[in-house]
Amino acid sequence: MPIEWTGSGPELLLRVDRDRPEPLRAQLERALRESIRAGRLAVGERLPSSRALARDLGVSRGLVTECYAQLQAEGYLVTRGGSATRVAAAARPPAATPSRPTSAGITGSAAPTGTAGSAAPVRIDFRPGVPDLSSFPRERWSRALRRACRDAPGDLFGYGDPYGDPVLREVLAAYLRRVRGAAADAAHTVVCAGYAQGLQLVLRALAREGVRVVAVEDPGDPDHRAVAATLGLDIVAVPVDEHGIDTGALAATGARAVLLTPAHQSPTGVVLAPDRRQALIAWAVARDATIVEDDYDAEFRYDREPVGALQGLAPDRVVLLGSVSKSLAPALRLGWILCPPRLSADVAHRKRLADRGSPVLDQLALADLLRSGHYDRHLRHMRPRYAARRVALVEALGRHAPEVELRGLAAGFHAVALLPPGADERAVVEAARRRSVGLYGMSGYLLGPPEGGTSPARLVLGFGNLTPDAVSDGIATVADLLRGG
Amino acid sequence: MPIEWTGSGPELLLRVDRDRPEPLRAQLERALRESIRAGRLAVGERLPSSRALARDLGVSRGLVTECYAQLQAEGYLVTRGGSATRVAAAARPPAATPSRPTSAGITGSAAPTGTAGSAAPVRIDFRPGVPDLSSFPRERWSRALRRACRDAPGDLFGYGDPYGDPVLREVLAAYLRRVRGAAADAAHTVVCAGYAQGLQLVLRALAREGVRVVAVEDPGDPDHRAVAATLGLDIVAVPVDEHGIDTGALAATGARAVLLTPAHQSPTGVVLAPDRRQALIAWAVARDATIVEDDYDAEFRYDREPVGALQGLAPDRVVLLGSVSKSLAPALRLGWILCPPRLSADVAHRKRLADRGSPVLDQLALADLLRSGHYDRHLRHMRPRYAARRVALVEALGRHAPEVELRGLAAGFHAVALLPPGADERAVVEAARRRSVGLYGMSGYLLGPPEGGTSPARLVLGFGNLTPDAVSDGIATVADLLRGG
Repeated sequence: MPIEWTGSGPELLLRVDRDRPEPLRAQLERALRESIRAGRLAVGERLPSSRALARDLGVSRGLVTECYAQLQAEGYLVTRGGSATRVAAAARPPAATPSRPTSAGITGSAAPTGTAGSAAPVRIDFRPGVPDLSSFPRERWSRALRRACRDAPGDLFGYGDPYGDPVLREVLAAYLRRVRGAAADAAHTVVCAGYAQGLQLVLRALAREGVRVVAVEDPGDPDHRAVAATLGLDIVAVPVDEHGIDTGALAATGARAVLLTPAHQSPTGVVLAPDRRQALIAWAVARDATIVEDDYDAEFRYDREPVGALQGLAPDRVVLLGSVSKSLAPALRLGWILCPPRLSADVAHRKRLADRGSPVLDQLALADLLRSGHYDRHLRHMRPRYAARRVALVEALGRHAPEVELRGLAAGFHAVALLPPGADERAVVEAARRRSVGLYGMSGYLLGPPEGGTSPARLVLGFGNLTPDAVSDGIATVADLLRGG
Repeated sequence: MPIEWTGSGPELLLRVDRDRPEPLRAQLERALRESIRAGRLAVGERLPSSRALARDLGVSRGLVTECYAQLQAEGYLVTRGGSATRVAAAARPPAATPSRPTSAGITGSAAPTGTAGSAAPVRIDFRPGVPDLSSFPRERWSRALRRACRDAPGDLFGYGDPYGDPVLREVLAAYLRRVRGAAADAAHTVVCAGYAQGLQLVLRALAREGVRVVAVEDPGDPDHRAVAATLGLDIVAVPVDEHGIDTGALAATGARAVLLTPAHQSPTGVVLAPDRRQALIAWAVARDATIVEDDYDAEFRYDREPVGALQGLAPDRVVLLGSVSKSLAPALRLGWILCPPRLSADVAHRKRLADRGSPVLDQLALADLLRSGHYDRHLRHMRPRYAARRVALVEALGRHAPEVELRGLAAGFHAVALLPPGADERAVVEAARRRSVGLYGMSGYLLGPPEGGTSPARLVLGFGNLTPDAVSDGIATVADLLRGG
């Protein structure tokens, strides 16, 4: 049965209900706070005496007195000397009722959104950079978490080592030595919240060493500009050709740091050629420069063994960034940084300042998967799945839009489609979107101005999170657009 | 049986073993990489022909050819035209073998470390800010994670909403309205990785609004200076007395933002007085300033109901930062930001840049605990435990060191001990450390110069992670030091 108090006017102000589980005092406090915030009780307005309100509500006077004291302590009410209790001046409603923003304009993926519009829901989404979310090993991960919850020593629930859990770092370093040919040392490995955070920690440490300009691949990740701007660094774009980044152009920039995707360039899909590797390392040594290697999807190569990490060649010149975002799931937010020895303490210091270290249970679960071999088995299980999706893409294009040329290694989960001459990239993306197919144009990845004023129409087709049937269906749906119809 | 190839000299260079599970090719590649990195195969050195090496190792020539090709692709080897394969110039060992740094100098806790030295292991640690790690509800959390792993729609394993999971934000906002008297709106709630990250996201958003100087409580969290410096902001220290921050001194600073711990000042343990609350809000309105409220341990008050959040009084002027670090465990790295509506989109944008959002499974598990009532039950379970630890501290001091005056509310997990006149804070801390008791001096929390040259000797005694017996034992062990002996 609700009991109400309506003050001097007709408007309902306070309402308490004995039948609700919430204690009466908590109900009354909340009702008072909300009435004040909403302006129903105005600043300066006098509240009824505790005796009167208690009588009207049928509660004890002590309860009302306690409520008033609580809200006075919190700053909602004032009582001067022996005079009446009034609404405090501090308790003011917000100046204007704000419109509720949605988070629709902000996406979590690396893919640029500007090219896709935001109209109808997307039925088949070729968004790059998303792995097969339905294959996440839920049961394995859950079991590994359960073991971590059960077995972790109590101390591990406190603030952890900013470098990351020591067990994970050992297991991870061993994995990266074995699978990526990296010169990994647990002492210089820092666990982080995925690539985005790792990059920032490293760029901050480099900025402290005097780096002001960072070279990036063009085309490349569109977020790099925003990240660099946050850190007060300048970005210089270096062109990528079919052998990877143009090392001659890099040397001409004067930059002392470069961000690279050597194993599978993002987004063009090329591998960095051996002579470019030589030139890069020579450049880094001559300039006292640092190479930041984004090893984002190097586990997935379908035609041969993946090329080993650049970091193994020159561990004092290369920082390797990796994560589980492609191998397990982006939602885990777990990554790692192999640091040159001179940088590791500073990177860990910045990790501590950023968030005091990554969540410990997730780190223990990843260590469990790596150590038990389930991580390797999961990768072996996924490779043929992704390879089949890539084959479906090749076949669908061959069948429905043979005019389109597909580029990029048999690797990762995206490929670049070169549209026929005269095609309008933006128009194709928008028309596909009206058919509920998500396509992403290369223009979103271009940093510098296109040479000669325009660049050829290209799409970056992600196939990681689409079944072979969905890939075929999607290509068939937009084939006339791709053919330049 | 290992098979070895020792090159032209006596030194062992390569070794493969058919009995190991690792494929021979992977073994040979790894052995070559390591030999090159270690300098055992020098730059320019000629490798044996694939035929000769295959014969010596008893493997197929094709296997050796593949290895050479792989290492050539990775940049370790070069082959020019038809001539011999040689070690590439890029493949150079690090300039010097670095000493392995340990992470001992970097701690994850907010407590300053400089005062404690780093000698013997600490048997009884009065480190402030650490909750009872042995009480973490492992079984509940594990079950909530399992449910999240099992039931989460596949989409949630991708890149998530940078604001945080929408379900958690709704549940959290309802909780903060109910328990903290906050004016919480899920649309303006951003999930983050604990207080440290939340503070940085908010300060960045404020810096964008033109804030250059941030006022902080003195004494206060020693990390604030480092965080502000990272962001290029200036810190101005404002004194705290027994009623909380000195609002008159705050107004005189000209700062347009202030960081506060109103419910239980860290470290002095006082609550912000009602008239100071009024003055603060009036200041924020008049100056167009923002109050950042660190609600770090407000769930724990033992003598009365906790004072509600300042944010509820003026949600368009106050940012509330909270986390589960004190209520559940620091290792989870989960927190939240209640933003004034004008700031929420920018804070979420910065969260996306920082790490693309917090891990999703942990967010779902927290939502589960909040919704099921287990979170409230856990807090109810913990309050008497912490209260008993505080009582043990009061009693132990009364018994063993009655000269020491204990200050601070019956709240949280720390209290301030005022030592008798003439006591030397640093000397007490160091002597206690030699007895394996961790004490932390107030000097580590002071930002401004002490008035009159020196400040009284005070200790910040954390009792959250110590049983009542450990508290008594610890105080008895150092009682003569505390008495000024």
